[in-house]
Amino acid sequence: MPLQSRFQAALDAAISRASDGIAPKHLADALAYSTGPGGARIRPTILMSVARACGDDAPELTDAAAVALELIHCASLVHDDLPCFDNANTRRGKPTVHVAYSQPIAVLAGDSLIVMAFETLARQVPKHPERAAQLLMLLARQTGMPHGICAGQGWESEAKIDLGAYHRSKTGALFVAATQMGGVASGQESEPWTELGARIGEAFQVADDLRDALYDSETLGKPVGQDDLHGRPNAVTQLGADGAIARLTAILSGAIASIPHCAGEAMLAEMVRKTAERLTPVVTPVQSRV
Amino acid sequence: MPLQSRFQAALDAAISRASDGIAPKHLADALAYSTGPGGARIRPTILMSVARACGDDAPELTDAAAVALELIHCASLVHDDLPCFDNANTRRGKPTVHVAYSQPIAVLAGDSLIVMAFETLARQVPKHPERAAQLLMLLARQTGMPHGICAGQGWESEAKIDLGAYHRSKTGALFVAATQMGGVASGQESEPWTELGARIGEAFQVADDLRDALYDSETLGKPVGQDDLHGRPNAVTQLGADGAIARLTAILSGAIASIPHCAGEAMLAEMVRKTAERLTPVVTPVQSRV
Repeated sequence: MPLQSRFQAALDAAISRASDGIAPKHLADALAYSTGPGGARIRPTILMSVARACGDDAPELTDAAAVALELIHCASLVHDDLPCFDNANTRRGKPTVHVAYSQPIAVLAGDSLIVMAFETLARQVPKHPERAAQLLMLLARQTGMPHGICAGQGWESEAKIDLGAYHRSKTGALFVAATQMGGVASGQESEPWTELGARIGEAFQVADDLRDALYDSETLGKPVGQDDLHGRPNAVTQLGADGAIARLTAILSGAIASIPHCAGEAMLAEMVRKTAERLTPVVTPVQSRV
Repeated sequence: MPLQSRFQAALDAAISRASDGIAPKHLADALAYSTGPGGARIRPTILMSVARACGDDAPELTDAAAVALELIHCASLVHDDLPCFDNANTRRGKPTVHVAYSQPIAVLAGDSLIVMAFETLARQVPKHPERAAQLLMLLARQTGMPHGICAGQGWESEAKIDLGAYHRSKTGALFVAATQMGGVASGQESEPWTELGARIGEAFQVADDLRDALYDSETLGKPVGQDDLHGRPNAVTQLGADGAIARLTAILSGAIASIPHCAGEAMLAEMVRKTAERLTPVVTPVQSRV
């Protein structure tokens, strides 16, 4: 089965478990809405590609890990869009959760998605105790404090930001989780997979900076110019657009070079190249804001 | 070691792990602040009492379960106090987290506490795979959707509330988690412990309704009259103050009667009686609002 279909089936199962029986309808709807089609599914795709490159001998565990990771990512988007953070009205071309539903529902949807993520992995403990325990710990580490995406957002409330820690945790953490968890789901150690995730994360950050600086909000499906607006560091401000694109290319070459020896090494390099194509902004007409 | 000291040591360890090394300071501080002294620790005390009544043969697992449960409870308080929910300025006599820090920090603190809760249990999987897996699943069930405290809050966004489901999930869920997890941490089945938790939860709800209706905000350390204000069902509105107190007493007798046969049965009955004393409002001078 193609990775995307496997992932979608596992995600659908998790969402339907969370809405089973007597459940408050708006919150149940918001869980489906916030995880629905439109997302690039880039993190679970990386996770499942790494797992496949390592043999994928426990596909149900790979699927659970991919779903858990995407649920955390979706939770972070729902909370980051809230008025007290980015105050974004659109995401993936649709109204954000607090606009479509309400702020209380958006807070609760994010909370519920985090719980679902850990529940999805916990269900795998009886069959795969060692690997599932590692997956739970890796996901927690890359999500919470002091090193995960919560910490990354937390840095934005500090007067003095540790820029390295900020980028590693804010954007890098879930990419590191993707490659590490893909390896662990297939019975490998996590450590050799750290650098690949970190480099993809760096590339993603630069690409995101480029999109934020170069695109208009209609093309992007969400508000742009947010970094300038919130005074956040941005690679385009530091290096210029051409400099940032050159940096993106260099990081992705490094990512390919970092892939550990494994059966699916060539396939993974191809996956990184495809990710690169997807990430690199097509610099078209609307550049008026730079 | 007394239960309270064991619990505090385990909680301190979890909080200090979450602030280890390079971490954003405000968020790290907010984690300590939101889990700091002042809370009654009623849920972890129940959990540890049940575990002790069942032999407590894996005390480190009991401690982890108690900490995880309290972290979820604290997360729910931080998020419930937000302006989009209760908009509470004080809690336990101190400024709420979003007042003391900021709304972004309050959202992130709640998120981080949820992650820490599951991480705390996940750390126990290698040593106690079966029990820890059950504990993770029980905690997830009583926290998320469709039956946990997230669902409970979610019901408040529905035009038509299923009152039974609302109370079971909003207040009852974490008490059911307390008794079930206490049993499971000591190697027992969860099911025989469900009724005790459910009844303590019911009692707590009635006691909370009484406090909300009878106390002033200075005595209570948080805003009162919130049920009236938000149009939420309240036992005092339905039964009057005397009726509600009679109902509280009846529920607690039922709770004692529901305790499964175990070595610590008498100790547990005593624990429920003490909980009852603690819960029953001392109806003193300030009753002007009823």
